[in-house]
Amino acid sequence: MTTKRRVAVLGATGTVGQRFIQLLADHPWFEISALTTSDSKVGKRFGDVTAWHVPTGIPDHVKDMVLQPTRADVDADICFSALPGDAAIEHEAALAKAGHHVFSNVSTHRMDPDVPLIIAEVNPDHAQALTAQRRGRGWSGSLVTNGNCSAIHLTLALAPLQRDFGIERLLVTTMQAVSGAGYPGVPSLDAIDNVVPYIPSEEEKMVEETRKFLGTWDGARFVPAAITMSAHCNRVSVRDGHTETVSLTLRGSPSVVSVKDSLRAFRGRPQALKLPTAPLHPIIVREEPDRPQPVLDRDAERGMASTVGRVREDAVLGLKFVVLGHNTIRGAAGASVLNAELLLAEGCLG
Amino acid sequence: MTTKRRVAVLGATGTVGQRFIQLLADHPWFEISALTTSDSKVGKRFGDVTAWHVPTGIPDHVKDMVLQPTRADVDADICFSALPGDAAIEHEAALAKAGHHVFSNVSTHRMDPDVPLIIAEVNPDHAQALTAQRRGRGWSGSLVTNGNCSAIHLTLALAPLQRDFGIERLLVTTMQAVSGAGYPGVPSLDAIDNVVPYIPSEEEKMVEETRKFLGTWDGARFVPAAITMSAHCNRVSVRDGHTETVSLTLRGSPSVVSVKDSLRAFRGRPQALKLPTAPLHPIIVREEPDRPQPVLDRDAERGMASTVGRVREDAVLGLKFVVLGHNTIRGAAGASVLNAELLLAEGCLG
Amino acid sequence: MTTKRRVAVLGATGTVGQRFIQLLADHPWFEISALTTSDSKVGKRFGDVTAWHVPTGIPDHVKDMVLQPTRADVDADICFSALPGDAAIEHEAALAKAGHHVFSNVSTHRMDPDVPLIIAEVNPDHAQALTAQRRGRGWSGSLVTNGNCSAIHLTLALAPLQRDFGIERLLVTTMQAVSGAGYPGVPSLDAIDNVVPYIPSEEEKMVEETRKFLGTWDGARFVPAAITMSAHCNRVSVRDGHTETVSLTLRGSPSVVSVKDSLRAFRGRPQALKLPTAPLHPIIVREEPDRPQPVLDRDAERGMASTVGRVREDAVLGLKFVVLGHNTIRGAAGASVLNAELLLAEGCLG
Amino acid sequence: MTTKRRVAVLGATGTVGQRFIQLLADHPWFEISALTTSDSKVGKRFGDVTAWHVPTGIPDHVKDMVLQPTRADVDADICFSALPGDAAIEHEAALAKAGHHVFSNVSTHRMDPDVPLIIAEVNPDHAQALTAQRRGRGWSGSLVTNGNCSAIHLTLALAPLQRDFGIERLLVTTMQAVSGAGYPGVPSLDAIDNVVPYIPSEEEKMVEETRKFLGTWDGARFVPAAITMSAHCNRVSVRDGHTETVSLTLRGSPSVVSVKDSLRAFRGRPQALKLPTAPLHPIIVREEPDRPQPVLDRDAERGMASTVGRVREDAVLGLKFVVLGHNTIRGAAGASVLNAELLLAEGCLG
Repeated sequence: MTTKRRVAVLGATGTVGQRFIQLLADHPWFEISALTTSDSKVGKRFGDVTAWHVPTGIPDHVKDMVLQPTRADVDADICFSALPGDAAIEHEAALAKAGHHVFSNVSTHRMDPDVPLIIAEVNPDHAQALTAQRRGRGWSGSLVTNGNCSAIHLTLALAPLQRDFGIERLLVTTMQAVSGAGYPGVPSLDAIDNVVPYIPSEEEKMVEETRKFLGTWDGARFVPAAITMSAHCNRVSVRDGHTETVSLTLRGSPSVVSVKDSLRAFRGRPQALKLPTAPLHPIIVREEPDRPQPVLDRDAERGMASTVGRVREDAVLGLKFVVLGHNTIRGAAGASVLNAELLLAEGCLG
Repeated sequence: MTTKRRVAVLGATGTVGQRFIQLLADHPWFEISALTTSDSKVGKRFGDVTAWHVPTGIPDHVKDMVLQPTRADVDADICFSALPGDAAIEHEAALAKAGHHVFSNVSTHRMDPDVPLIIAEVNPDHAQALTAQRRGRGWSGSLVTNGNCSAIHLTLALAPLQRDFGIERLLVTTMQAVSGAGYPGVPSLDAIDNVVPYIPSEEEKMVEETRKFLGTWDGARFVPAAITMSAHCNRVSVRDGHTETVSLTLRGSPSVVSVKDSLRAFRGRPQALKLPTAPLHPIIVREEPDRPQPVLDRDAERGMASTVGRVREDAVLGLKFVVLGHNTIRGAAGASVLNAELLLAEGCLG
Repeated sequence: MTTKRRVAVLGATGTVGQRFIQLLADHPWFEISALTTSDSKVGKRFGDVTAWHVPTGIPDHVKDMVLQPTRADVDADICFSALPGDAAIEHEAALAKAGHHVFSNVSTHRMDPDVPLIIAEVNPDHAQALTAQRRGRGWSGSLVTNGNCSAIHLTLALAPLQRDFGIERLLVTTMQAVSGAGYPGVPSLDAIDNVVPYIPSEEEKMVEETRKFLGTWDGARFVPAAITMSAHCNRVSVRDGHTETVSLTLRGSPSVVSVKDSLRAFRGRPQALKLPTAPLHPIIVREEPDRPQPVLDRDAERGMASTVGRVREDAVLGLKFVVLGHNTIRGAAGASVLNAELLLAEGCLG
Repeated sequence: MTTKRRVAVLGATGTVGQRFIQLLADHPWFEISALTTSDSKVGKRFGDVTAWHVPTGIPDHVKDMVLQPTRADVDADICFSALPGDAAIEHEAALAKAGHHVFSNVSTHRMDPDVPLIIAEVNPDHAQALTAQRRGRGWSGSLVTNGNCSAIHLTLALAPLQRDFGIERLLVTTMQAVSGAGYPGVPSLDAIDNVVPYIPSEEEKMVEETRKFLGTWDGARFVPAAITMSAHCNRVSVRDGHTETVSLTLRGSPSVVSVKDSLRAFRGRPQALKLPTAPLHPIIVREEPDRPQPVLDRDAERGMASTVGRVREDAVLGLKFVVLGHNTIRGAAGASVLNAELLLAEGCLG
């Protein structure tokens, strides 16, 4: 790959936009050619108007970039979208129509019948829907989405189990980090010394997205996986890293050892293709009784892996475990970047 | 009740001991006659050697009390035990043998076949086992236990549902406060910006204690309730108040409205007898989507109530909700005090 | 006092407004006759539109009150103002002109040359300025302010030292709770695992308000105390309770013992008059090396006292100590209520 | 440097020991040849008995190393000491006598009259005392210490100001991270929603160590800098990174601009020698009003820089600012490693 692809970050000043910039700053295949934002910051220097929250600091060459409005003629092949919901409605389809390849972290189009919702290791074949998408919508570009932060880490842990055994029923309780709500996001009076047992629409998203991820594209539509699911979603006093307790029923009641073997052996196209952002091990299985923990495990594989621990029998559903992952890297921006790498490497972007 | 009963707090300097002292300080029926401790603090003034952690401060008349060793001849009718596990093994039975009525918050004897494990509203009839206990052990006193902090609040919420419908299966995930581990207890490096998805022995305790609470005394032994149960226990960055997400299957699949009605209508002997420490409403049901929360609900009814929220359907098990309660008041010391009030009022203490 | 005075809470739905309601709910002298708010919530039931954050819950009779617009004809003798800054500019003077006695927690008019800035124990004589205020402004009512939360607790600790010795120079560093910024206020990403070493305008307010509190009313104007002062203000991960480290130079270099005696002996008009909200001891001096602490000391005297600890020599300025107090009770709403009680008892409200 | 120096980590299982291991894992000049510990863990595999708290995980080749007792015949040229205080008394001098070059993070010997207390950029010339140390003690090895975490970052910020202007008086208030107390260290009940305004011996250490750092070695003894100093030390709810507010008097009352220039221009021997662990900029000066903050600035220059912000005039002492740095990297293990690199590069280790 001799020249880098030009990429835009849409909604660049928010929490996810900042993660996109961090992950793209020294990317071997991509170079940031445009940063877009809502109207009031247009024309301003990025470094002047952004409350930067990523510890590593703003990359130097990004500081001086001038924020542009989000428009269909943005100078970029690929657009990574961290737009607010209403701006996503307005712009994502228009950009794809104008020939851009949009990789969106926004929930707006995730459940659209012709929009693939992809985790690169889990369902890369869903990219086949892009042919139908382009034909049906008359687009020269494309739109690919990556899913909710909690659903992504849950699904990563479920994918090998679904393939090797089959999942019948599943109950999950999440303990989610505040960064998932962006900035300013969760008020500190809701976080310090507290748990909020509710995140609007999160439980519904987890169920429907997990089923779409683990379902199939039958050439005409997405068929969701037939898993009976229920989720309890909670906000806890953690900066980054979602922890999820999972109880589930697998077909054939495999042993705990078989389940761990299945999780540990899991690899996907990103690993086969050695994509730049791919984790070496998408799922890490730990044996210590008290892992995974956010402070110790969220940054595993540069935030791109899910860590599973406490795999053991469950008296009600058969099996239980804990899964944890970084919500704004693998659970958001990193997932989009990996999807873009995958589709580029597979020749799906024309 | 013209004269107050003399009561001792065993293991008075720890977190639960302090809560006992707080709850007993102005009690209408009890007066603190002795505080006991491990050897090194014996003979010292309570106020001089106790790292007091209850915001309301040490009651004045307690400050000057001299700590005694835990011995069978302690000057008290009733002993509230917050002893460490090994000290409980050594002393609780000896005290009961010597004629004391021991109300223990310690786990040591909870599952003993002749020791009642009581929540005053839930299974007051288990006190009938004391006759067998005294006869079998040759005790003139008695030993009553109150159970694990997480199990107590779960069971309070389950009790009306077990009575009105019957519980078949249950999955619970806890998010527990650090005060449950005492002081110094949980290191701050495990708590700040973190979740620890493991508490030693907690999951086992929750299952076996909940079944004993909801079971029956058949005249000779305790028959546990036949509920299939599984628990995930987690420590979160909260000072006080355990939050638990619960999914369960009730016989007859009652509606959400019926379940809320059952919870709201729940009353027990403590309410009928108007016991001093009894909450007016042992279970509070809230309708807001984001309740209960530790900072807003743990102190409901002076920490003696459990608060239930988000009662709704569950695709896997049928019904789900969130329950929250104060772990060191109703979940520990307050439960013991209420048990003592109940047995005294019912004439079970001779 | 046979009938209660009718009082309004202006800006009732915010954090300070809620504290006003809590403190006024069972007040022996006052009854809440009106709650006002910004336009969008006008006409709504208070309980329906308020995100209530005080652990004790909304008082029952307040839940059903209908929110009114803030207007000069509000039905109340006394108005407690927790208005946003711009609404305070618009309404406070208008209300005072219309005959209301406004006790404001807002910073807008604190430094006005004819508006008294009062801590009831410290400078009750500044109420004499009301005569000039009414005459000069043509008001039949009045406007009294109470000062910044950090300045109030600092000044309470300084008042006896200024009176008994005289303060020459003072350096203070604050560690302030997030509730001081209201709700939503401080984002949790700024609070968890973090310190923000900056609070806009806070350092300036602390200096000018402390000088005004400790200064004099010479019959025509306020003469600020001639204290050289500097402040560093920080936001820390605490819900309630501001902690301040103070180094200062006192005239005559009194001993540590003399300073503690001065602090402990401090009483004011609220104590002499036994006002309902007055703390028995406005300043509590602790001897433990690690006190005061927010969780242990902020609720002393129902949040109305300042707690001082670690009084010791300072190599640079002479003396140092730590002072802590509840920022939304004594540092805000409670200070206003106490001021109203004082002026009512002293006959200053006509 | 063709072969790597063999280094031991003494007290390898604690918080600082773990940081040593992290920093030495891929060091270009050093290889870890021994890990020592207290008796009970001797003979065990490091990975089996260590509660590892550094997010990056245990380096693979360290996991399998067997813990040794701390003894004078340890197989290493250089020993990095993170021993507990009593073990340091027993072993550090013995190791130096036996020919080892001991770089200690422990406070035991810091104020000894012949033991240099060094910050590599600040007072590298204090290493001259090693000649006297070896002669006086009859050692073939040496002992060098690095100072308290709060004193190191304060001193880094002061060094250029002392050199360029001269410091007369200084007041500092710290807000220190819990990791400074090791593991288990600070109980979470002291940290969540709280500040503890006291750290035993910390204020004394800050004063005496800062003066020794900024003082001189006159050929026979250390002459402390003649700075009048006072410190307030506090523990706040932060994992890593100490924040300090500083007010000080500089000779000649330089302007804020001159002070910032002095701070920004500061370089030392580590920068000149391009030592592996040296930060490019030992002091970073920020212009934003709300910086430095622990989450955003503690990892600057891989945790080896101090970040200064809010440089401005101070009405009492003349100048004030905020300084922040990583307490277990530059404030502990990293400081020792840099000292070892410096003395090796300068030929002071024989």
